[in-house]
Amino acid sequence: MVESVERLQQRVRELERELAQERSRRVLGDGDGGGGRVRIEKMSAEVVDSNPYSRLMALKRMGIVSDYEKIRTFAVAIIGVGGVGSVTAEMLTRCGIGKLLLFDYDKVELANMNRLFFQPHQAGLSKVQAAEHTLRNINPDVLFEVHNYNITTVENFQHFMDRISTGGLEEGKPVDLVLSCVDNFEARMAINTACNELGQTWMESGVSENAVSGHIQLIIPGESACFACAPPLVVAAKIDEKTLKREGVCAASLPTTMGVVAGMLVQNVLKFLLHFGTVSFYLGYNAMQDFFPTMSMKPNPQCEDRNCRKQQEEYQKKVVALPKQEAAQEEDAIIHEDNEWGIELISEVSEEELNSSGQVPELPEGITVAYTIPNKQKDSVPQVTVEDSGESLEDLMAKMKNM
Amino acid sequence: MVESVERLQQRVRELERELAQERSRRVLGDGDGGGGRVRIEKMSAEVVDSNPYSRLMALKRMGIVSDYEKIRTFAVAIIGVGGVGSVTAEMLTRCGIGKLLLFDYDKVELANMNRLFFQPHQAGLSKVQAAEHTLRNINPDVLFEVHNYNITTVENFQHFMDRISTGGLEEGKPVDLVLSCVDNFEARMAINTACNELGQTWMESGVSENAVSGHIQLIIPGESACFACAPPLVVAAKIDEKTLKREGVCAASLPTTMGVVAGMLVQNVLKFLLHFGTVSFYLGYNAMQDFFPTMSMKPNPQCEDRNCRKQQEEYQKKVVALPKQEAAQEEDAIIHEDNEWGIELISEVSEEELNSSGQVPELPEGITVAYTIPNKQKDSVPQVTVEDSGESLEDLMAKMKNM
Repeated sequence: MVESVERLQQRVRELERELAQERSRRVLGDGDGGGGRVRIEKMSAEVVDSNPYSRLMALKRMGIVSDYEKIRTFAVAIIGVGGVGSVTAEMLTRCGIGKLLLFDYDKVELANMNRLFFQPHQAGLSKVQAAEHTLRNINPDVLFEVHNYNITTVENFQHFMDRISTGGLEEGKPVDLVLSCVDNFEARMAINTACNELGQTWMESGVSENAVSGHIQLIIPGESACFACAPPLVVAAKIDEKTLKREGVCAASLPTTMGVVAGMLVQNVLKFLLHFGTVSFYLGYNAMQDFFPTMSMKPNPQCEDRNCRKQQEEYQKKVVALPKQEAAQEEDAIIHEDNEWGIELISEVSEEELNSSGQVPELPEGITVAYTIPNKQKDSVPQVTVEDSGESLEDLMAKMKNM
Repeated sequence: MVESVERLQQRVRELERELAQERSRRVLGDGDGGGGRVRIEKMSAEVVDSNPYSRLMALKRMGIVSDYEKIRTFAVAIIGVGGVGSVTAEMLTRCGIGKLLLFDYDKVELANMNRLFFQPHQAGLSKVQAAEHTLRNINPDVLFEVHNYNITTVENFQHFMDRISTGGLEEGKPVDLVLSCVDNFEARMAINTACNELGQTWMESGVSENAVSGHIQLIIPGESACFACAPPLVVAAKIDEKTLKREGVCAASLPTTMGVVAGMLVQNVLKFLLHFGTVSFYLGYNAMQDFFPTMSMKPNPQCEDRNCRKQQEEYQKKVVALPKQEAAQEEDAIIHEDNEWGIELISEVSEEELNSSGQVPELPEGITVAYTIPNKQKDSVPQVTVEDSGESLEDLMAKMKNM
């Protein structure tokens, strides 16, 4: 009887110890720790259930991509790991990108749970830390470098510039692409400034405050309009702006719109890096009407960013130096029209419309500008003309800052 | 002493049970188990970091949705929890849908890791079990019902029909919507048959084998074309079909295309259930050109599914019984043209083109049919006319089965 009690007591102690171990493993967030996957040295096209790359390598057999393995040679920086940025990072991770550099200074909150990627148990962690943990577990072949800071402060901006220009797959080389997935005007302008100075190709993305429209944009410094060349283009919401109140300061968001925008963005990234299909310079998404406008814009020779103007000069020199046929092709990359706005349209627009400075140019259906630039030639006092809304520049700038 | 032994034995049983629970939670992928969130009785619009619904409820303040809370009253069935279905389920879960019914008989494999949602440590688990676990953790307010079986077997099909017609939020009531996220022809036909018999509205989704196109389609029995009314429409890939070889039997897939299609699908679901924006009857996605064709189709009066023909009669009776104005609106829901195909176009098509049976009708740019139906009136011997490809019906049916 005594023996029996002792045996039972020992069993209780054993079980308590095992239970404590199990609990600590689980609390560490290691549901995954047990059964992740090992690193894979070389991408294979072998069709077996255990090959995480078989469906991607099949793109070669299908005649879509000629050299899919090249994905491993690219480094992509993502600024903003929120509703669009986190899904963008997950898609690139699953595609087997070589290296990801993530920049964000925010923490995961339960209020983010209406978007994909982050889970409730990550609330309180920094977004870049939580993202790195999940992404590394999904694909240990990807290299990660994360920075938990705001790129818009002077000191951080310098470090950000440094990592963009030297944080490539091979340290010392620049990254291959920068993706802006931020939710405010200052951060977009900081990325624009950095990329103009470095001549770094980047893509912009955005989702409207009412959650039902978004866009992506490819910016090749000197070749296509930068973020300072023209007012940022947004997809017209076609809803009554008066219903859009601001006192609550809480933008709406939907996992659907963010998922579509992230999908369009990463698809454009894959097409750009792996050379297939047509890379879009601007692709919008109007969820209310299921309408997807496209367009392209050439840079503004009067752009206020001097590095943009410098890149434009260098691009022109490059085009002139090319053999004639190539130069023509290069020029055709963006269909040109001479106009002060530098806005290139797929639809036909008259010279008159385009030369009427200070007015909203006629854009493809469904695209609109956030504000217009004053006509400096005609007026010495800066004036801002805004179509219909009658809002002040201050109102509009406040809006822009909340984009 | 006896008492003590009994107490100890009871304690051992308790600990063993707790340990088993802990282990199963960890094996299921519960890094999360520790810090999930508690259930929320009532959706609130309060703007605090701890409110997972604040960004969704903001859709009301933005004037997009008049009654967002209604999302909790709907039950949606998802058949196929793969690349599109899993993301669809996650989006609806994060949006706070009332109940999800998931049907799939597949297991998670490492070969699925190029798509979103599943993680490597879940390899080997059934897709519905792994999905339920992750989704419940993301949003414990959603009710889940999962079925790990193939709906196309006779016995399972009956059970599937039964759950569709009685598994609503209130047991005994039908579900509000059925979503087809399957990857083969038989399963689509089974869903079509069930929904025609039950008069159940459903949405179809699909992604091409080359991973660069996809589509969604809304089917309201009797009102819009069912899956048997017309050859399934696919988005033209505009790539050389000869490069598409089949011996390897491994379709390509991309997280981007699947993410965009899932986003378009769930956006359409939200618009349909919560009454905002324009619900699309057909929306395609051509990733190579960033082209998104839309169209709608009326049902085929000669549809081979007798329940489809019955639903058409009932719909016609309903339209006739309506007051004149409402009937006209109802009729306008799909723009009608008389043609044997019953294919309704947004673009203009001549009567001649539409009446030339056995030919491929002129569809909106970028949409094509998988095969054509023989002209029974003119020929007694069934003939299949296929544009350009010169493939046999068998080849095409084999293709269809791998859709």
